[in-house]
Formats: sequence, structure tokens, C-alpha cells
Amino acid sequence: MTDIEERHREKKARIKAAKDRLYGQKTREKGLVIVHTGPGKGKSTAAWGLVVRTLGHGRRVGIVQFVKGRRETGERRFLERFPELVEIRVMGHGFTWETQDRARDIEAARAALAEARRMLTDPELHLVVLDELNIVLRYDYLPIAEVLAVLEAKRPDLHVVITGRNAPPELLEAADLVTEMRLVKHPFREGVKAQPGIEY
Amino acid sequence: MTDIEERHREKKARIKAAKDRLYGQKTREKGLVIVHTGPGKGKSTAAWGLVVRTLGHGRRVGIVQFVKGRRETGERRFLERFPELVEIRVMGHGFTWETQDRARDIEAARAALAEARRMLTDPELHLVVLDELNIVLRYDYLPIAEVLAVLEAKRPDLHVVITGRNAPPELLEAADLVTEMRLVKHPFREGVKAQPGIEY
Repeated sequence: MTDIEERHREKKARIKAAKDRLYGQKTREKGLVIVHTGPGKGKSTAAWGLVVRTLGHGRRVGIVQFVKGRRETGERRFLERFPELVEIRVMGHGFTWETQDRARDIEAARAALAEARRMLTDPELHLVVLDELNIVLRYDYLPIAEVLAVLEAKRPDLHVVITGRNAPPELLEAADLVTEMRLVKHPFREGVKAQPGIEY
Repeated sequence: MTDIEERHREKKARIKAAKDRLYGQKTREKGLVIVHTGPGKGKSTAAWGLVVRTLGHGRRVGIVQFVKGRRETGERRFLERFPELVEIRVMGHGFTWETQDRARDIEAARAALAEARRMLTDPELHLVVLDELNIVLRYDYLPIAEVLAVLEAKRPDLHVVITGRNAPPELLEAADLVTEMRLVKHPFREGVKAQPGIEY
């Protein structure tokens, strides 16, 4: 082993020891408020990954989709096969930029929030996904204060994941874990269309 | 409707028309090389989301895990329930920072790459996940040129997702779609330990 390799290994060992000390003190279990935001891909997709992870531990999941896409997605089709493990509620219709009916959109957003409120206190659920809630907040379909109150009232050991671009600062402040997905390179720019299994 | 609302709506309509023109031209289907990198969470998790999405479309998936974690993960436990749809290969053991046996690690990485090479030309698969391949590249367990050659030789319509921090620039260059996960806020900093369904 060269000197450089030896010094590298010693440094690694020191870092590992420091981490062990640090992580050894991490004893609190806590239901987390997780936010996936940013302009990149993977916000909802990573939420479906957490769903799968949770199902693998034999725990139940609730999903509220605040924005209904135009086509049926692969993840919904797959997760609907496990109705005893996954409860999915999809907002009934599209959005103002398509429907031109803001009042109806607000009504649908309120109904979705009511579902979220119920799921977040459900003793059977381990994880709740509030998919594209940030979009609803962005369009002022729901007051942020009311959403924060719903999150505040959640069962303390339940995890919740909130997805969508432009998460408001108040939500980031209230969250335990925030990841921003940053777009580095995207094939739409090169004439490749949306494909099953990737975009939907 | 106020003037501001009307102007906002008109602007939205113009953006939508421009998008329709743009997306109407996107006609190419192409198997993508997707990279999830960066220091934030959600890199592997978003890959599991793409797996679920693909399964929902009734297509098959291959997974090679280049780094075996210390515990059994929820996602692996769940996906192993579908052996006819998901083929999972896990590198046999830990890594030098634990095992202090670099030669053995390199051998395991080579075996994992051989699995990847086979899967990437398998006519039955729609998506292949090379989980934590970036870590292996980072530690120089595999030459980047060889990995790029394996990707180059993949079936043209097959999608591949590569995860892990510190993706090398050559890989980013070769990729079609790159997302960087950025850590904005993390609960470990506040004494919360790793929890099932979230971290594993």
C-alpha cells in the first residue's frame, strides 16, 4: 500500500468513527414531513419509490393525487392491484388551465384535502403521499395556513410526502426533509417524446 | 374576472399553444440513459418509482445493485415478490470501506457489470436499473470507458437508470436525462434516526 493510499484509508476510518458516534445518537423515531420539489424529474417518482419501500415492510400507504393527469399512469395501474395495502384517491378532473372552471377546481382541491386530513390520522397507514399538492398551493386553490394545520394534526409517527414544483416557503419551513430535483439534461430538448414507464 | 386574471389566462393559453406545437414535434421513441445523482435523497428511490411505473405497463425490469447495503430493504423485499416481472441481482458483499479487500470488491463489481451487460441486451426487458453504479466508478473499481461501452451496446429501445452520487462527467455526457437530487433539509441533523420505509 502506498503512503497516499494509507493516508486515504486512515482518513476514511476517522470519518467512519465520527459518523458512528453521530448516528449512534440518532435514537428518535418520528413521522417525517418530506417535500420533493424543484423543476427536475423524480419528484412523484421518488414518492412511488417510498411507497414500494413501505409496502416491502408490510405497512399500508395512502395516496391523494391533487392533479389528475390526462392519461392513466403505470404507477397507478400497478398500485391499484393492492387495494388492501394502498388506498388511492384521485382528484376528479383536470385543472383550470384546461377546464376554465376555477370554482370547480377549488372544490375538488378541498375534497382532496379532506381525504388527506382523514388519511393523516388513520391509525392503519404508515405513509401518505400528497401528490402535486404544491401545484394546488401554487394556484392558490387552498390556503397554505389550512394545509399546514392539516399537517400539524397528523398522527405523530406517520410519514407524509408532498410533491410538486414551487413548494411554498412556509411548507419548506414546516418540513423535516426537503429534496430539490434539479434538471441537468432532458431528452425532450432533442425531439424524444414522452414514453410509457418513464414519463407516465 | 379581473383584468389581471384575464391577462394571466391569456398568457397561459399562449404558453399552452407553444407547448402543443413543441410537443407535437416530439415523435421519436428512444431508450434513454437516465442518471440520478447529487448529494440529496431520492436517487435510488426514484429508480424504484420508474420500476413501478414500468411494471404498471406490463413490462419487465432488470435490477443490478452494485452496492449491497447492510440491511434488507423494503423495495427489494417487495419487488422480489414478482420474480416473473423483476429480475434482481445483488452484488455479493459490502465494500472496501468495510471489508478492506479491494481486490474482492473489484471482482464483485466486474461480475455485476457482466450481469448489466447481459440485461442491457435482453429482448424481454424494458428498463434496467444499475443501482449505485456511480459509487463503483467513483472508487475506480471499474474503468469508465468499459462502462460506457456496455451502455453503448444496449438494445436501442431499452431504458437504463444509473444511480449514485458523484456521477463522472463522461457518464453525464453520455446520458440523455440527468437529474441532480439536492439536499435542502435533512432530519438526521436533528437527531432522527434512519427509519423503515424512508431510508431502507
